[in-house]
Amino acid sequence: MADGGEGTLDAVLAAVGNAGSRRHMSVCGANGKPVDASYGILDSPAGTTAVIEAAQVVGITDRDGMSIDVGRRTTRGVGELVVALLDQGVRRFMVGLGGSSTNDGGAGLLAALGMALRDAAGREVGPGPEGLAALSHVDASALAPRLADCAITIMSDVNNPLTGEHGATAIFGPQKGVSAAQVRRYDDTIAHFAERAELTVGRRAANAPGAGAAGGLGFALQLLGGTFHSGAAVVADLVGLDAALAGADWAITGEGRSDAQTLLRKAPFVVAERARAHSVPVTLISGAVDAEALPALGRYFTGCFGLPNGPASLEACIGGAEELLADRAEQVARVLDTARAARR
Amino acid sequence: MADGGEGTLDAVLAAVGNAGSRRHMSVCGANGKPVDASYGILDSPAGTTAVIEAAQVVGITDRDGMSIDVGRRTTRGVGELVVALLDQGVRRFMVGLGGSSTNDGGAGLLAALGMALRDAAGREVGPGPEGLAALSHVDASALAPRLADCAITIMSDVNNPLTGEHGATAIFGPQKGVSAAQVRRYDDTIAHFAERAELTVGRRAANAPGAGAAGGLGFALQLLGGTFHSGAAVVADLVGLDAALAGADWAITGEGRSDAQTLLRKAPFVVAERARAHSVPVTLISGAVDAEALPALGRYFTGCFGLPNGPASLEACIGGAEELLADRAEQVARVLDTARAARR
Repeated sequence: MADGGEGTLDAVLAAVGNAGSRRHMSVCGANGKPVDASYGILDSPAGTTAVIEAAQVVGITDRDGMSIDVGRRTTRGVGELVVALLDQGVRRFMVGLGGSSTNDGGAGLLAALGMALRDAAGREVGPGPEGLAALSHVDASALAPRLADCAITIMSDVNNPLTGEHGATAIFGPQKGVSAAQVRRYDDTIAHFAERAELTVGRRAANAPGAGAAGGLGFALQLLGGTFHSGAAVVADLVGLDAALAGADWAITGEGRSDAQTLLRKAPFVVAERARAHSVPVTLISGAVDAEALPALGRYFTGCFGLPNGPASLEACIGGAEELLADRAEQVARVLDTARAARR
Repeated sequence: MADGGEGTLDAVLAAVGNAGSRRHMSVCGANGKPVDASYGILDSPAGTTAVIEAAQVVGITDRDGMSIDVGRRTTRGVGELVVALLDQGVRRFMVGLGGSSTNDGGAGLLAALGMALRDAAGREVGPGPEGLAALSHVDASALAPRLADCAITIMSDVNNPLTGEHGATAIFGPQKGVSAAQVRRYDDTIAHFAERAELTVGRRAANAPGAGAAGGLGFALQLLGGTFHSGAAVVADLVGLDAALAGADWAITGEGRSDAQTLLRKAPFVVAERARAHSVPVTLISGAVDAEALPALGRYFTGCFGLPNGPASLEACIGGAEELLADRAEQVARVLDTARAARR
């Protein structure tokens, strides 16, 4: 499973088998330098579909991309990938958001696709919210006309709007390096950019759910006509979760850290919901489980377990995740297997 | 459950209810200063029985006792407690070893009970292995004669002999503060003391299993005629474990840290063995579980779980143990309850 963030491409490609393939393209990374980005091509009855994971281009775990200040990071590379795919004739896109290092309102992507973003002197503005601060003229007349024929499915696990107190900068900016003092300024800059972009495109998107995903990529893609979906629900369909649950005895799911947010339609929640429809119990095994959320999680999960076998650092848990997951799953399986063998 | 170490008194008193009571006595602590020690008095058909936990007098978690060097720490207080109980007419003793800070071969206890330990000038030797180094004359002629009428049950979870490479000093000395350079010297000192004590008493005990328990208290008590038992097995009988298991659906047990040593008849192993006889599955919930020991533990336990819900320090695990234990037990119970409700 995945939710549109990091790992989405792997999950989808693993599930579709021969119907999909992994490709690579060198595009502009968050820091403006080339990055080798993976994407997927799926053969489907509706036509060739490209699966793009924003985190492959501007991932928050990419050290190079993170090496420059968030104020200058750009999503241009995601737009370059779309342009190259349009050139190849692709018209169906599934774009996973989440796990991005950027906070540019999706301006980089729009610029790559032909939107003119210029300062008062007519020069192209620089990358990121720092560059956008000089924005004066916005013109969508050169925006790739082929986009009109496209179906863009946006996969995200957050519903935040682009700006304001629940917006991308206020909520996700700090973890990307936006300082408390910068939040207000960047938020204002992006609000101004969005207003101008909406005007020239003739569509509103800044207040749409998920506009604030991936630092505003959710806004840019909706401005282009993309439809916003729960990433986990789309991935569940792509990987055939319902078919896997039909007739299953038990399901095990998990995530990095489970807490009250998990119930806001994160991947494990979507698994729990689908499993409930098939009367299949679901056990949660996550890197960490917030003890305060156990009562709420208990309404959806039959047993919630963290990974460590004892006192352990975050680094040890991450480094040993594969083995710890296998160990924990085996121990849970032993309990349930023995319990199932016993009659009440 | 308990194994003779810290917590044994609590476990026994909790199990026997009105048939037992907790008492207190001020005796000499490991550092020679008074310590208020708890002990238990049980009414049994065989007569009044005193339950003594060595850790209550010379516990390794007692900061005051640990404040002086291990070379000077003494078990005299345990002997003082026995003398006072003999004065009260008690003749049945259950003595739990384990969790001690001392490494005096039980010399302090024997001295309190009347064994003369003198240097070449006829002066009583000082406490601990440092004091024993000056030992010249040992005389048991004044040893409390009432001890001959006593039944002393020794409860321990270690089988080590008093001295040598598997002895008290070599194996348990370092965790009490015996330096690598001191091990050989202290071991020789204690071997010399033991030889002289065995000679004057006319009984051998230094090589008996468990002589090395509690820094040699196991030797001293066996020299006095005490019988050595698996602490966990004795406690299991005292707390009525078999009756509790009869007709039970499931058992949960645990300890601070479970590893390959657990299978050397530690408390959880004794629970697993008794439970197997009643066909009751046992789940292990310990502060930590050694991942390498999981396959071996899996032969006795249906599911082995550590305490933490995620990355956590040792201090956090200890501080939150009660809540973590309750959480983990609840999560395991949810899995097994749901699994039991499902038919194969």
